[in-house]
Amino acid sequence: MIVVMKVHSSQDEIHGVVKRIEELGLKGHISQGVEHTVIGVVGQIFAELRDRLELLPGVEEVITVTKPYKLSSREFHPQNTIVKVNNLAIGSDEIIIMAGPCAVESEDQLLVTAQAVKAAGAHILRGGAFKPSTSPYHFRGLGEEGLKLLARAREETGLPVITEVMTPTDVELVASYADILQIGARNMQNFTLLDEVGKINKPVMLKRGLSSTIQEWLLAAEYILTQGNEQVVLCERGIRTFETYTRNTMDISAIPIIKKVSHLPIIADPSHGTGKWYLVAPLALAALAAGADGLMIEVHPNPDLALKDGAQSLTFDNFQRLTFQLMRLAEATGRRLAIPSTKVRA
Amino acid sequence: MIVVMKVHSSQDEIHGVVKRIEELGLKGHISQGVEHTVIGVVGQIFAELRDRLELLPGVEEVITVTKPYKLSSREFHPQNTIVKVNNLAIGSDEIIIMAGPCAVESEDQLLVTAQAVKAAGAHILRGGAFKPSTSPYHFRGLGEEGLKLLARAREETGLPVITEVMTPTDVELVASYADILQIGARNMQNFTLLDEVGKINKPVMLKRGLSSTIQEWLLAAEYILTQGNEQVVLCERGIRTFETYTRNTMDISAIPIIKKVSHLPIIADPSHGTGKWYLVAPLALAALAAGADGLMIEVHPNPDLALKDGAQSLTFDNFQRLTFQLMRLAEATGRRLAIPSTKVRA
Amino acid sequence: MIVVMKVHSSQDEIHGVVKRIEELGLKGHISQGVEHTVIGVVGQIFAELRDRLELLPGVEEVITVTKPYKLSSREFHPQNTIVKVNNLAIGSDEIIIMAGPCAVESEDQLLVTAQAVKAAGAHILRGGAFKPSTSPYHFRGLGEEGLKLLARAREETGLPVITEVMTPTDVELVASYADILQIGARNMQNFTLLDEVGKINKPVMLKRGLSSTIQEWLLAAEYILTQGNEQVVLCERGIRTFETYTRNTMDISAIPIIKKVSHLPIIADPSHGTGKWYLVAPLALAALAAGADGLMIEVHPNPDLALKDGAQSLTFDNFQRLTFQLMRLAEATGRRLAIPSTKVRA
Amino acid sequence: MIVVMKVHSSQDEIHGVVKRIEELGLKGHISQGVEHTVIGVVGQIFAELRDRLELLPGVEEVITVTKPYKLSSREFHPQNTIVKVNNLAIGSDEIIIMAGPCAVESEDQLLVTAQAVKAAGAHILRGGAFKPSTSPYHFRGLGEEGLKLLARAREETGLPVITEVMTPTDVELVASYADILQIGARNMQNFTLLDEVGKINKPVMLKRGLSSTIQEWLLAAEYILTQGNEQVVLCERGIRTFETYTRNTMDISAIPIIKKVSHLPIIADPSHGTGKWYLVAPLALAALAAGADGLMIEVHPNPDLALKDGAQSLTFDNFQRLTFQLMRLAEATGRRLAIPSTKVRA
Repeated sequence: MIVVMKVHSSQDEIHGVVKRIEELGLKGHISQGVEHTVIGVVGQIFAELRDRLELLPGVEEVITVTKPYKLSSREFHPQNTIVKVNNLAIGSDEIIIMAGPCAVESEDQLLVTAQAVKAAGAHILRGGAFKPSTSPYHFRGLGEEGLKLLARAREETGLPVITEVMTPTDVELVASYADILQIGARNMQNFTLLDEVGKINKPVMLKRGLSSTIQEWLLAAEYILTQGNEQVVLCERGIRTFETYTRNTMDISAIPIIKKVSHLPIIADPSHGTGKWYLVAPLALAALAAGADGLMIEVHPNPDLALKDGAQSLTFDNFQRLTFQLMRLAEATGRRLAIPSTKVRA
Repeated sequence: MIVVMKVHSSQDEIHGVVKRIEELGLKGHISQGVEHTVIGVVGQIFAELRDRLELLPGVEEVITVTKPYKLSSREFHPQNTIVKVNNLAIGSDEIIIMAGPCAVESEDQLLVTAQAVKAAGAHILRGGAFKPSTSPYHFRGLGEEGLKLLARAREETGLPVITEVMTPTDVELVASYADILQIGARNMQNFTLLDEVGKINKPVMLKRGLSSTIQEWLLAAEYILTQGNEQVVLCERGIRTFETYTRNTMDISAIPIIKKVSHLPIIADPSHGTGKWYLVAPLALAALAAGADGLMIEVHPNPDLALKDGAQSLTFDNFQRLTFQLMRLAEATGRRLAIPSTKVRA
Repeated sequence: MIVVMKVHSSQDEIHGVVKRIEELGLKGHISQGVEHTVIGVVGQIFAELRDRLELLPGVEEVITVTKPYKLSSREFHPQNTIVKVNNLAIGSDEIIIMAGPCAVESEDQLLVTAQAVKAAGAHILRGGAFKPSTSPYHFRGLGEEGLKLLARAREETGLPVITEVMTPTDVELVASYADILQIGARNMQNFTLLDEVGKINKPVMLKRGLSSTIQEWLLAAEYILTQGNEQVVLCERGIRTFETYTRNTMDISAIPIIKKVSHLPIIADPSHGTGKWYLVAPLALAALAAGADGLMIEVHPNPDLALKDGAQSLTFDNFQRLTFQLMRLAEATGRRLAIPSTKVRA
Repeated sequence: MIVVMKVHSSQDEIHGVVKRIEELGLKGHISQGVEHTVIGVVGQIFAELRDRLELLPGVEEVITVTKPYKLSSREFHPQNTIVKVNNLAIGSDEIIIMAGPCAVESEDQLLVTAQAVKAAGAHILRGGAFKPSTSPYHFRGLGEEGLKLLARAREETGLPVITEVMTPTDVELVASYADILQIGARNMQNFTLLDEVGKINKPVMLKRGLSSTIQEWLLAAEYILTQGNEQVVLCERGIRTFETYTRNTMDISAIPIIKKVSHLPIIADPSHGTGKWYLVAPLALAALAAGADGLMIEVHPNPDLALKDGAQSLTFDNFQRLTFQLMRLAEATGRRLAIPSTKVRA
């Protein structure tokens, strides 16, 4: 941590800051620049230190040089984390495709979609049983009934399932059905929920919040990791910007940044990231080219009849075309799609 | 709802859309423009209609003309909602000041602050017992112990208390201590929590999410209102923009907009809105000048020792100076600060 | 300037950085923290230094502690700059109102508006002769004819005039008619234009760019100041955010920030800042309460017939009502509106 | 254009709007919905119509359904525009790589870079002679001397050159040296400059403004096109968002959107888009995968000695590695890199 003194700060003010740093059990190294004096703080930095120093007389600003996240940082964990789901290894050289409807609507809708995405090469079935919705008048999901249908689709296809959990009291329930629990973008800073999924022994996919910086996202992952659950997968799904053509702006650069600063796997969700089905394929390809470990794609048998997010869902045909393109692209970048499970789970 | 057809859409496509509208039990009025044909949809619009029509052949876009929020809209509820807390009327001509520490840290810290803000003219005591924090390594509040201290401070000063509830299972607990429940910015779209506070009979103050549009904010209020709780107060506390000088950018224009489109009272929180104590007074004055029904201000006996958000907290002296300025400003705009409670509640 | 080394940087890397700093004629002070080594750079920092050091092996990041702007900074110029226009002193205790139509449309439109705003208490007449317009199909102003009409309106009313200059070759022309030259938001980083208005001896009002940070804005002012023109007035007119209800989001906090970090006067333009006439008054009052030195308000005899920005223009009646409110508010904050010029300039 | 009336608008208000529409020589079709009456405006819409109607009594809002850009729209020009530069065809199936230093610094720096990027497979040499710079204290380019060096590098290598023009009076000069003129992001709405490059017979590459919507970008292109210059290439180079890890956020989705709504070619600039050299390759690959017609990449012999933007420049080695990756990726998507010019231009 570095304390930058004001241009005209006095010797008394400078020594006041050093004295305070020492009272707190740390050391202060004064470095006298041409305009500013800066004081390096040496020792075990604690969370409230910044405020402690920023308000002292003569202080211009306090700069934190230590990253606030540890367990999610590559500095402290150089090897890639690989999250295992059955025979799948998320974060390895093999790319994972998660696909399925935005919301589980009915047994028929789910099963036909599950079979179709499996046939096209998807590895994991997605589907929302508990659905966050901006308006209270929109469809909010089938609840536990939806979870049961997901379990049934898993039995039929052998595909592991990922589904969202929205509230701490549902974690146990959702974990009893799902193979991966998803934390949605709007819940990225629902800290009670993060604590709760940190206590279970199932993989968690943490979506980036709409207005969340990369650092805040990693701090949210840190909540889960500090509780002991190391099976965390990140998911970039677009951030909120001034551009209104798309629902969100996919931050593709977040993918190589996460790869650089963290060891956690990262998935891209171009369906929510764009909000328009005809942008899903180009952005899926872009995410893969930028190094994503996998993709999450919304697929629906009849997008124009979907109860939720039809406009961003691919038809079966379009999804099949996309997986073929992804396969070719993966090869060109020296990677490959994971081998899909070929038989039903025992 | 209006369907805009593509420039070169065919007669078949146009009639296909009208046919679909009629199948859904509605009527479609064709209006042939120079470039675009537009089809007005008449009848009872439902939530999924947009997606139903947007994916039909020949459709360029679907425009919703009806506001998605009803109960929070002034159109359907022309009179101002006035939320009563003891003898205070939030949303009336009388301006309400909520003040206190960011977090409840100790009995001493809370009581001395409560006495000081009361003496300076505050009407409601704020203080966090459950604290959301970006990092898991920061102070997260005293929990129920903090609630007990708030109740104790209320006994001592007669000031009603407002405090945050972060998770659905705590609603009952927090409601048993607090006079107003606060939903924090990060939980503005925690829909399970909104449902829960919608079922109690206590006022709820709903902070605007960091990246929430005004429409999304009113839809979040709608969650609470549809559950039957009509005592909703909104709170503007800054939105996330590219500007990094301030922690957030106070959207002062949201205040007159809410007054125009909604009947709900609106409070401004310049402490979180700016993140810097020396910006709190000018932004508090600005919010009042723009029509806010009240203010929420962080005050701490020793900001440089605060466990949370010291940099944005006012000292007792600065707070007193501010309430005096607010008093004069209120008068100049034809309003006045509410009369503070003068004795301890029986 | 401070160089933060990576967590696992080697002694060789640390010494490599120090060696490089010394080769560049500066000194490096090593401060060994628990996690990071930081190296303070002492000496005359130059613009390219950051890149010079950031790419060296072992460097995590380079932090600049010195503000990049000097002439516009309060640190190096503690007293307020006061810009004189006739008997008006922008930046003093007296608040200045600039008002008039968005665009000069005709002699009649301009003169009647000039008389009306003068009668209501405005001090300076605004009106665009050269109009930036997002679309090439919209009205782009009357050009020099508009300037002549402004000069005529000044003769009739005695009000000094402010008008925009859009391109370097027009600076001389516009300066020969106008009392204050305005640089529009879209030209805030038109560096050739900034250079040019820096060479004249007339006040310049520099609007903040739509996506400009406060630091970039002051650096744009610095372009003008370094050319020798010290008569610079800043104007906050809203920034671009995700919120679509308003045309822009007025950053009211920019007003007290500019007052703190700079000595230049600051004006607020709630007409462009909001884009809606019914938000102009509340935001004008808010800007004044936050400490603005003046306001710029669009007024039109018939807003619904305006060739440009009618939706954000006040009628004469609404403008008169607003100046009355501003007068009362100014008094409540210990300031006052400047005394309007009462007779025609000789 | 559609006029949405307020929920409680009266019959008189509705008829008043229709009457006004008819006075303006257009027709109004009333469509009575359950809540809102909407009036479709039929006839030749003109720019000021929106404001004319929005302020009438009873009007809630006016919605424009016609896109404001015409010449840049695919609706009115279905075939792709192909911009020819020597034997290169920008916008065809062949991908074009523009590479070179951010700024032309010296003959040696430029020539060695030109040779290196040519050897690695680049098609066009980039280099700034006139450099926009946020601070007046930074390097602003060699001016005409830089243009001469670019011409010299072209002679040596046969590579056509692209360079920025910053002000209208320099257009002729720059056009006399360059093969493509670049309009920088900060000048995207410098309308006088757009007019001027619209009058020449040379290709123009128009960078997207930092806070420009896709619609505003196409309207800026429209300025050039309406002046008669049809050789316009767009360039996505990142937009400003709240994320601070990167200098800007590359909006990769803009690439397929432009392909859908416009016929103009689109290039991606990941150097400015990210601001960090180690993000250039992944974002370049992503842009190509998303359908970009080409890339613009900053390359410098010694990035740590660059006078400008060293932190985002690739070394020769890294650039060569990237072109190889791009080649493989292009093939996987059914396209290919253009064949580089193999000899010096006569």
